[in-house]
Amino acid sequence: MGKGQDLYNKAKNIIPGGTMLLSKRPEMYLPENWPSYYEKTDGCYVWDLDGNKLLDMHIMGIGTNTLGYNHPKVDEAVLNTLKKGNMSTLNCPEEVLLAERLGELHPWAEMVRFARSGGEANAIAIRIARAASGKEKVAICGYHGWHDWYLASNLGESDNLDGHLLPGLDILGVPKSLRNTVIPFKYNDLDLIRKIIEQNPDLGVIKMEVMRNEGPNPGYLEGIRKLCDDNHIVLIFDECTSGFRETFGGIHKKFNVNPDICMFGKALGNGYAITSVIGKRSVMEAAQKSFISSTFWTERIGPTAGLATLDVMQEESSWEVITEQGRKIQDGWKELNNSLNFNIKISGIPALSSFIIETDQWLKCKTFIAQEMLKNNILASNTVYLCTHHNDSLIKEYFDKLYPILNEIEKYLTNDMDLAQKLNGPLCHDGFKRLN
Amino acid sequence: MGKGQDLYNKAKNIIPGGTMLLSKRPEMYLPENWPSYYEKTDGCYVWDLDGNKLLDMHIMGIGTNTLGYNHPKVDEAVLNTLKKGNMSTLNCPEEVLLAERLGELHPWAEMVRFARSGGEANAIAIRIARAASGKEKVAICGYHGWHDWYLASNLGESDNLDGHLLPGLDILGVPKSLRNTVIPFKYNDLDLIRKIIEQNPDLGVIKMEVMRNEGPNPGYLEGIRKLCDDNHIVLIFDECTSGFRETFGGIHKKFNVNPDICMFGKALGNGYAITSVIGKRSVMEAAQKSFISSTFWTERIGPTAGLATLDVMQEESSWEVITEQGRKIQDGWKELNNSLNFNIKISGIPALSSFIIETDQWLKCKTFIAQEMLKNNILASNTVYLCTHHNDSLIKEYFDKLYPILNEIEKYLTNDMDLAQKLNGPLCHDGFKRLN
Repeated sequence: MGKGQDLYNKAKNIIPGGTMLLSKRPEMYLPENWPSYYEKTDGCYVWDLDGNKLLDMHIMGIGTNTLGYNHPKVDEAVLNTLKKGNMSTLNCPEEVLLAERLGELHPWAEMVRFARSGGEANAIAIRIARAASGKEKVAICGYHGWHDWYLASNLGESDNLDGHLLPGLDILGVPKSLRNTVIPFKYNDLDLIRKIIEQNPDLGVIKMEVMRNEGPNPGYLEGIRKLCDDNHIVLIFDECTSGFRETFGGIHKKFNVNPDICMFGKALGNGYAITSVIGKRSVMEAAQKSFISSTFWTERIGPTAGLATLDVMQEESSWEVITEQGRKIQDGWKELNNSLNFNIKISGIPALSSFIIETDQWLKCKTFIAQEMLKNNILASNTVYLCTHHNDSLIKEYFDKLYPILNEIEKYLTNDMDLAQKLNGPLCHDGFKRLN
Repeated sequence: MGKGQDLYNKAKNIIPGGTMLLSKRPEMYLPENWPSYYEKTDGCYVWDLDGNKLLDMHIMGIGTNTLGYNHPKVDEAVLNTLKKGNMSTLNCPEEVLLAERLGELHPWAEMVRFARSGGEANAIAIRIARAASGKEKVAICGYHGWHDWYLASNLGESDNLDGHLLPGLDILGVPKSLRNTVIPFKYNDLDLIRKIIEQNPDLGVIKMEVMRNEGPNPGYLEGIRKLCDDNHIVLIFDECTSGFRETFGGIHKKFNVNPDICMFGKALGNGYAITSVIGKRSVMEAAQKSFISSTFWTERIGPTAGLATLDVMQEESSWEVITEQGRKIQDGWKELNNSLNFNIKISGIPALSSFIIETDQWLKCKTFIAQEMLKNNILASNTVYLCTHHNDSLIKEYFDKLYPILNEIEKYLTNDMDLAQKLNGPLCHDGFKRLN
């Protein structure tokens, strides 16, 4: 057990849950043996506290760093802001420039607000949309953060968020009076959302991810758009995760369907905290009739990093690069699937690729993969979030190391042997499972 | 009209409200003539977009920079983080170190969570407190951010937040189902909160600022503490604003009354975004039964800046310096009050000092002060938030320039003349008044 696990044991004693993000809990990947903390980063490499240089074929900061870690142009811009001053009694000009830039990339959107986390951006969007529509009920499809308005969908009927976040999600502390203010709906089922609208005349907002594990059926997004127009419903696309991965902006540009409000997060600042809410003037101006204000939304690093990140994205056509390289990852898994005697199920857009092996030993497989890849100095699980540094040579290295591991798994699965005996520690947790 | 106002006119067209923080709207101080944006900062100086060097005798980033702008030691630590990498698939060790450090400063608190804005920290605290108490109703006294849980106190009876935030606060988009989940109470009235508790057996949380414009009456905070203990109510002190201004930590340390949860914001990172929720283990562990998680809460600059800021605060005894200098500001206003023929009413702790002149021309006075002080290259209104750079010489400069302006005001008030004729632009807005 290295220094990272020592520090994590200390963390669990003083931080409820151990980390600030569920997806960065060591238990999600390799309990008791995950490096857990980093000393430094570069490109697509991470150095742990024991000085090991690890190739990140995993979540790249949970999708924040599509340009790789420590991009010199983004960091130079942030450094410049550091020298000039990050905060003042006056406002920073960069927020106006970034607002303009996001509007240029999305001509349907005339107004912009910024926050510093995706959950905040989601909560701002809901507040504005409710204010604009004058109706409070919200229909949702996807993952939209941790705030009360969203988790309320899990109140009452406790399985409401199944398929959206995680089965059995704990929501203690969310006011029960919010019950029935949020209705989850299944993706790609236009009849369902039509029925929900008919049955809920007080439905004022539809918030959804543009794509889920599958893409939209022909006419689905157009159908949603028309239903919203016909029923005075504000349509929100949550692109905190999908933005800037398939187009230079929202993935909705690919489908030629515009929402009324759209949020960006994660990739927008290439690892620096900045999130945004863009929208049509007629909707966004409702923000003026509410109180949405926060001190640290005025800090300067966020919009500085956002502007520099957009410049570099454009220069490098990063969304094309990561999509192309992501396809190679998915193709590689498909090849493994063809050559090995088990079924690999692949999901996600290319830049956010995932697989599972269809077996009741899956969690053992997942833990084993992380354990064995780590022996090769590769951070990996069953998800690869791409950055522009993931070149063909690194992808080859990844598959060269992955192949013998899956080969070993195949042996165990084929012979119905228990893979647990190959694990040096406890099983990883599944999805959003709570920390025990 | 300078470059700042030009940019602000553009901003109002693409950002609802024009800025991310109400208190940084030019209309709050000097409509159409406020510099609005900054190019750079240093110590307690701000350079506007026209190259004017302005002495900040105003809100110092709205209370974020108690050590002054661009503190070399804090910035060096952030620079180092910039070089090492701000984000990664693994966690940053600094968050554990900062959690430990805050615990050392507050031995009653055993666990810590971090966020990046004060509103978030407030929402996290409420979620945890509701989860821990098993009761949903919250009583509040003070300003606690923009989220639904808080603004809900203004639902139904529209004057509910009067005295806490602002009269007539707009809350469009806050779900009406939250009505009666939050009860505002008046500071220093122990009988009132006792009555509220008696009448609301489902009251699970009391959240308050430790001090308001006045300090606690003898026995008041102790009385609240006892009522909470006797009724299984979680007591939260919101120290986002008051923290690190009178003690090395929460201002509650001065009064020897400990809450169950306490939040810090603003000053904690000296201008870098970091906020925290500290609390007793028995309460904080309820976070494990809820979902509270966000990508950008894992970025590294926040806790890095927090650690460095705490070091510098300790070295410089910054809370003592700003309190001492703040007393000089209040003493100076008192002297003016004695020598001039009108009443100046002073409020706030020394490090966050404010005054008003008791006249129905007050808004004209406030606008005039900002206008005339700006002619002397001083950013000022009726509030002075202190930093360690505000030395005696700068305070003398402030009063040397302020005196003739108040003298002029005295002439107008004494002779019942309209001060509006001295204004070069529109009247400033009052407090939290909406932007038109």
